[in-house]
Amino acid sequence: MSAEALLKVSADIERMMREFNIRPLDELKDRFPPNELLDLGILVAHRDFDKILDEYANGQKFAIVSGRGPSGPLHLGHILIFSIVKRLQDLFDVEVYIPLSDDEKLVFGKIKDLNEGEHWAFDNARYILALGFNPKKTKIYISSKTKWVYRYALKIARKLTLSAVKSAFGIDDSINPGVVFYAAVQIAHILQPEFDKGIRTVVPIGFDQDVYMRLSRDVAERLGVPKPASLYVRFFPGPRWEPMSSSAPETSIFVTDPPEEIWRKIMRAFSGGRPSVEEQRVYGGNPENCVIYEWLKFFIFKNSRESKKFAEECRSGFLVCGFDCKVIMALHLIKLTEELRKKAEKIDIEKYLWYGD
Amino acid sequence: MSAEALLKVSADIERMMREFNIRPLDELKDRFPPNELLDLGILVAHRDFDKILDEYANGQKFAIVSGRGPSGPLHLGHILIFSIVKRLQDLFDVEVYIPLSDDEKLVFGKIKDLNEGEHWAFDNARYILALGFNPKKTKIYISSKTKWVYRYALKIARKLTLSAVKSAFGIDDSINPGVVFYAAVQIAHILQPEFDKGIRTVVPIGFDQDVYMRLSRDVAERLGVPKPASLYVRFFPGPRWEPMSSSAPETSIFVTDPPEEIWRKIMRAFSGGRPSVEEQRVYGGNPENCVIYEWLKFFIFKNSRESKKFAEECRSGFLVCGFDCKVIMALHLIKLTEELRKKAEKIDIEKYLWYGD
Repeated sequence: MSAEALLKVSADIERMMREFNIRPLDELKDRFPPNELLDLGILVAHRDFDKILDEYANGQKFAIVSGRGPSGPLHLGHILIFSIVKRLQDLFDVEVYIPLSDDEKLVFGKIKDLNEGEHWAFDNARYILALGFNPKKTKIYISSKTKWVYRYALKIARKLTLSAVKSAFGIDDSINPGVVFYAAVQIAHILQPEFDKGIRTVVPIGFDQDVYMRLSRDVAERLGVPKPASLYVRFFPGPRWEPMSSSAPETSIFVTDPPEEIWRKIMRAFSGGRPSVEEQRVYGGNPENCVIYEWLKFFIFKNSRESKKFAEECRSGFLVCGFDCKVIMALHLIKLTEELRKKAEKIDIEKYLWYGD
Repeated sequence: MSAEALLKVSADIERMMREFNIRPLDELKDRFPPNELLDLGILVAHRDFDKILDEYANGQKFAIVSGRGPSGPLHLGHILIFSIVKRLQDLFDVEVYIPLSDDEKLVFGKIKDLNEGEHWAFDNARYILALGFNPKKTKIYISSKTKWVYRYALKIARKLTLSAVKSAFGIDDSINPGVVFYAAVQIAHILQPEFDKGIRTVVPIGFDQDVYMRLSRDVAERLGVPKPASLYVRFFPGPRWEPMSSSAPETSIFVTDPPEEIWRKIMRAFSGGRPSVEEQRVYGGNPENCVIYEWLKFFIFKNSRESKKFAEECRSGFLVCGFDCKVIMALHLIKLTEELRKKAEKIDIEKYLWYGD
């Protein structure tokens, strides 16, 4: 992705924010407990989170729902989202629900059968839980194996039409009926805390997933439950700017990648550096158009003071990609993935696994 | 329905039999244990039941699947189908699976929620089981509450397309996604014995439901399991020839109808009688175009000798609708429904209720 393409994306996001009533999160900065997510611009926008905070101030908890379609190993993008969810759980002391949508992966043909989905569900669950979720307030479930997903999806399906689902997702009649029904299933995951406990759901998502939120909100309104709120996460790029995707290994760093693979992918990542070290020392780098700088924000910097300091040192030519930032990043990720693998092995999934009450 | 309309229906059936390879059941008469179902023309046609009988002769059992969408009390049409199923269970000593499709009724908007579906599921189950199914070989289940329906439906959905489902059922994009997904759910009910036990399914149905069988067979082939077979039940008319329908009470006699209601509906039913008793005595009635004669076949006659004798006595003017046939039928149905209600009260559903193995 070029700088122009990025500008276009951010223009799209601005248009989308206006059109769909998504607000900058900065406006709520003072109402959050102290945290780095807003300070570093990791969480950038919200819809209705002000209402959540109003209720929270009155002692009303909310629930966070954040899922994963289990069809392969987790990559850094997933780790990142779940790290944000875990951080939000700590900040607000709230329940987290983690749907593992084997059903989604099956109907979209990403796994050959539900057994394969279950294999990846357990694998992924271990890594997600290794991030340190509170066992008393975290429920993880395999979507096709619960008592309630299908039943809630049926009730939701009644409030949708084929034409609405088809136009929302840009699909046609060549797809299978599981794909359109999955729209209702995903909404069931989102609305479940509202159905079961009468508490509001908050979903941390990327802007590109907002269509699911809008459908969920329409359905919530028709079913007479509060509309779920959302928090929008800054775009997290892969090594070559395109989003990380499990189906294109070169775009992603996986938690299962060995150290040399992580090193190689990071050294080859697009950065804001100059063609040569000499030039970079003289003219400085460009942190505004640098994958590594983005990653440092997500993984290394503690606050905006630190991120500004790095940016200045980059622009001044003091930092050099291959000697500094890429090395910091690579060593950090090698350590992080190694530790996660160790913790993942020891996770007792049964403590978190849930089929419905 | 007039006699001409009936002729058209039977022409449609003949065309359908040719086009979709449905064969007259008479050709298998000698391979059935002695029974009245073929003799009286209650079961009239089949697809692949010859293969079932071949396997059966080699010691391979089959399973019968016959369901009901629980959205109101059962009417005689339902009692009739399940009586046939029970009779087939006795004749062949085979397992019977009875899906109660609350999911179907919900997505088609026939019930307001799944609780209402469950209420009717239990009600209907009692009456069905009161017909005397073998508790060791009969499993009844509420579709949305099993462990497996949703999972099997997902795997089936992958083998269908929206366009195939839409054209099979003549639906458009204004319907909800639950309706198209239900095509996969119904196929899951039918194929479950093949998936779970590797035994063939036989479904007793009306000709008008054959589209589900054809879809099920396509899917079975794509999933590499044997294609389910079907047995076609003669059309069972309501008091005014149109099919009995729960949503139009005057078309149906319900198991819950009090005696005076049954009496009234039967006395008002279309029969092959003459405008006056005198004319009927002189010119005779017409059993070929008589709802009551159809019902006698399904409920009263023991064999074709008896049905022929009644037809002759009708044509000769010896029998008169309001003095003879209607009275016989009304008294029989009043007794049958009364006995069923008593037995239904005593049924221990838990002995039959099943959620999956």
